[in-house]
Amino acid sequence: MKKKVTPKIMSGFMELLPADQLAFEKMKQIVQETYESYGFVPLDPPVLELSDVLLAKAGGETEKQIYRFTKGDTDMCMRFDLTVPFSRFAAKNQNELAFPFRRYCIGKVYRGERPQKGRFREFYQADIDIIGNEKLSVVYDAEIPSIMYSVLTKLGLKRFHIRMNNRKLLRGFYQSLGLEEQSADILRLVDKLDKIGSENVRLGLLDLGVSQDNATRILSFVEIGGDAESVMAQLSQLGIDNEAFRAGCDELKTVSEALTALGVPQSHYKIDLKITRGLDYYTGTVYETTVDDYPTWGTICAGGRYDNLAENYTDKKLPGIGMSIGLTRLFDLLSGAGLIRTAGQTPTEVLVLPMGSSVSYPLAVAKALREAGIKTEVYFADVKFKNKMVYANKIGVPYVVIVGEDEEAQQTVSFKNMVTGDQESVSLNDGVKRLKALLDDRPILPVITQE
Amino acid sequence: MKKKVTPKIMSGFMELLPADQLAFEKMKQIVQETYESYGFVPLDPPVLELSDVLLAKAGGETEKQIYRFTKGDTDMCMRFDLTVPFSRFAAKNQNELAFPFRRYCIGKVYRGERPQKGRFREFYQADIDIIGNEKLSVVYDAEIPSIMYSVLTKLGLKRFHIRMNNRKLLRGFYQSLGLEEQSADILRLVDKLDKIGSENVRLGLLDLGVSQDNATRILSFVEIGGDAESVMAQLSQLGIDNEAFRAGCDELKTVSEALTALGVPQSHYKIDLKITRGLDYYTGTVYETTVDDYPTWGTICAGGRYDNLAENYTDKKLPGIGMSIGLTRLFDLLSGAGLIRTAGQTPTEVLVLPMGSSVSYPLAVAKALREAGIKTEVYFADVKFKNKMVYANKIGVPYVVIVGEDEEAQQTVSFKNMVTGDQESVSLNDGVKRLKALLDDRPILPVITQE
Repeated sequence: MKKKVTPKIMSGFMELLPADQLAFEKMKQIVQETYESYGFVPLDPPVLELSDVLLAKAGGETEKQIYRFTKGDTDMCMRFDLTVPFSRFAAKNQNELAFPFRRYCIGKVYRGERPQKGRFREFYQADIDIIGNEKLSVVYDAEIPSIMYSVLTKLGLKRFHIRMNNRKLLRGFYQSLGLEEQSADILRLVDKLDKIGSENVRLGLLDLGVSQDNATRILSFVEIGGDAESVMAQLSQLGIDNEAFRAGCDELKTVSEALTALGVPQSHYKIDLKITRGLDYYTGTVYETTVDDYPTWGTICAGGRYDNLAENYTDKKLPGIGMSIGLTRLFDLLSGAGLIRTAGQTPTEVLVLPMGSSVSYPLAVAKALREAGIKTEVYFADVKFKNKMVYANKIGVPYVVIVGEDEEAQQTVSFKNMVTGDQESVSLNDGVKRLKALLDDRPILPVITQE
Repeated sequence: MKKKVTPKIMSGFMELLPADQLAFEKMKQIVQETYESYGFVPLDPPVLELSDVLLAKAGGETEKQIYRFTKGDTDMCMRFDLTVPFSRFAAKNQNELAFPFRRYCIGKVYRGERPQKGRFREFYQADIDIIGNEKLSVVYDAEIPSIMYSVLTKLGLKRFHIRMNNRKLLRGFYQSLGLEEQSADILRLVDKLDKIGSENVRLGLLDLGVSQDNATRILSFVEIGGDAESVMAQLSQLGIDNEAFRAGCDELKTVSEALTALGVPQSHYKIDLKITRGLDYYTGTVYETTVDDYPTWGTICAGGRYDNLAENYTDKKLPGIGMSIGLTRLFDLLSGAGLIRTAGQTPTEVLVLPMGSSVSYPLAVAKALREAGIKTEVYFADVKFKNKMVYANKIGVPYVVIVGEDEEAQQTVSFKNMVTGDQESVSLNDGVKRLKALLDDRPILPVITQE
């Protein structure tokens, strides 16, 4: 006998058992349905791309993490995000697309990071982007986070904040202090404020050659808070008058107002002048979403406005706005916190248990149930009734239908609610109707159980 | 300015434009919903696995095609099918699963074949399998093809045949001729009968050392045809009496009868004694599905019964039955034959066109439409009305809603059917109800347009 190979998987790869996988699929489906309800088109780019093409822009830390290899003469990579394949797609097919072009993509991406808790090497991202041809209205900057609000709420998440900032506003602010040159270093430092505290940020700023006065101004600037209206008032009191600052203020104001029109409550978004996102990419509005009760989780969903999606591939300017949810990481965090609701190990709603030797009647019953839209499975293993019920309990099916010789002779079914134990015996027709009504009556519970 | 990189993709990788992608997604969704309606559990194994684990069994042609590489010290492969990852999963998690365990998986697999028309290096497979703990009832051998019948019919495919055979029957037949030793070579030859014709098969059989008499017997055996009952009668007239042959006949009979009970019409399945499938894998029932009008397409969906899913990983015997659709190839074939119905470049059902400067009323209208379950998009680009309609026509949206200052003042909407040109102006509430009713009234047309 051949030696057995241990059936292990690589670390950093998430593989779920049935109950969790069903919950994850439900989450993915809600994200997908919500994206489509806003008219986003699904795209499904290859997982593998030519290295020359995929790495046209990448560099630094990301490039080291990439799964890159050759086969034959071809040098290829597994995608490390969904944005680069989208930019390649948009450049390639620019003449076929209608602009503004709205696309979503829910797919796995690959990063060979050093494995550590909460870091995955294969993980789902769920992206939406809207790109314009040469220009794109700032109203879309409000639509994108409103969709994320809708997604997270439908998933069952209750207390979270979409934090918003504007890179033009930041540029104008640092310009007013004469610190434009150092602004990249300053932004990187200020971005850590919540982690390292304001005293350390001050020391860091002084190290960068920023004066005490300017350090104070920066620290009070990033602490400006309150609702959108109050933030706008405080910003205007700074008396800064340059084009970038004015543009940033105008955009923040427009986006805040449109968010309200889109039904996002003030309790769920705020202007946060600390956040910056990727420095060489975003140019206007930026977002980060955090879960209120879990500050250590960091950002679960982020994005922003960029000036030019596909500059490495085309002269055509494609400005856009996008946001992405890290689904695998979010599921892992929620699951670790006990916030994922599972409901059995099966999608089956009714399990048909044949008691006699007849095959055709149980199959006909199952067919009738399925035609009524009920997910139905027939259990054909030749075991004792007790063991059939063990299976039904193990998979966590809500109803079983028992069909033996008596039921076949009378064309009836006996069904049992597996939670209450209630049993009924009725005609096949009535049984199908009863079960359909009982299943439709069940409350729809969200995947995430945050109270 | 940096040199632009040509945004090309690798040959053998399918990437669809929006209209086709939407059709493909619909196809995938129908497959998924049908699999779940039979109680199959989704599994989503990693795309990358350790080479030692994934290649525990593979060899020969398949192994050459595998995308295999190392990163750090780790030797890994991209999956080349969904069966090996499933067998690894089943072995790893055997104590967590309830048996019979029903799983489906719709995912991409990778084979670095030499690119040629109709061959893909990245393609979707859509698998279902039912595995038992030590044993599994033969009734499941009928359930699996009945599910495929249901899937293909729901997709809109009308004229196809699920061809069925049984490896035990073949073993018994060749045993009766004293040709058991050569049976692998004979099966490989007979499998080509439709391609090379019976005279060439006869010559090949003689080359293998088969006598003229036996060659004649083999050729008349594989031509046995007609409905299940008539085939069974002809088989019994052969007067063969060994255990394998009897077992094969019994299984074919049980499966044929159960297929009828499951509602699969005789017009869509037949016993075909020529087909064999993978020689070192399947042990009982085998299936191949072909599309009647397109014999050159070959098999679009196939599978069978195996004795032991995970023998490379565990001592536990997991017999099973499974079937797989090659979704990417099927879509490509159908699309090439003009049999895919597309319906616009967007999932959007209603496009809201703001005419005035107000942002909040168009957004409120969109929100009301979405809350009624209508997929809704708002078009915010600041262009002339004519260009807005160009966009609406290009994406192929069924309805547009026009909201200008008058509509906002009166809280009304004006909507237009983009096909008929009919327009109506009504209150917002009535507009939402009217549009919902009009959209619900549209016929649901299948993805595949075979007449």
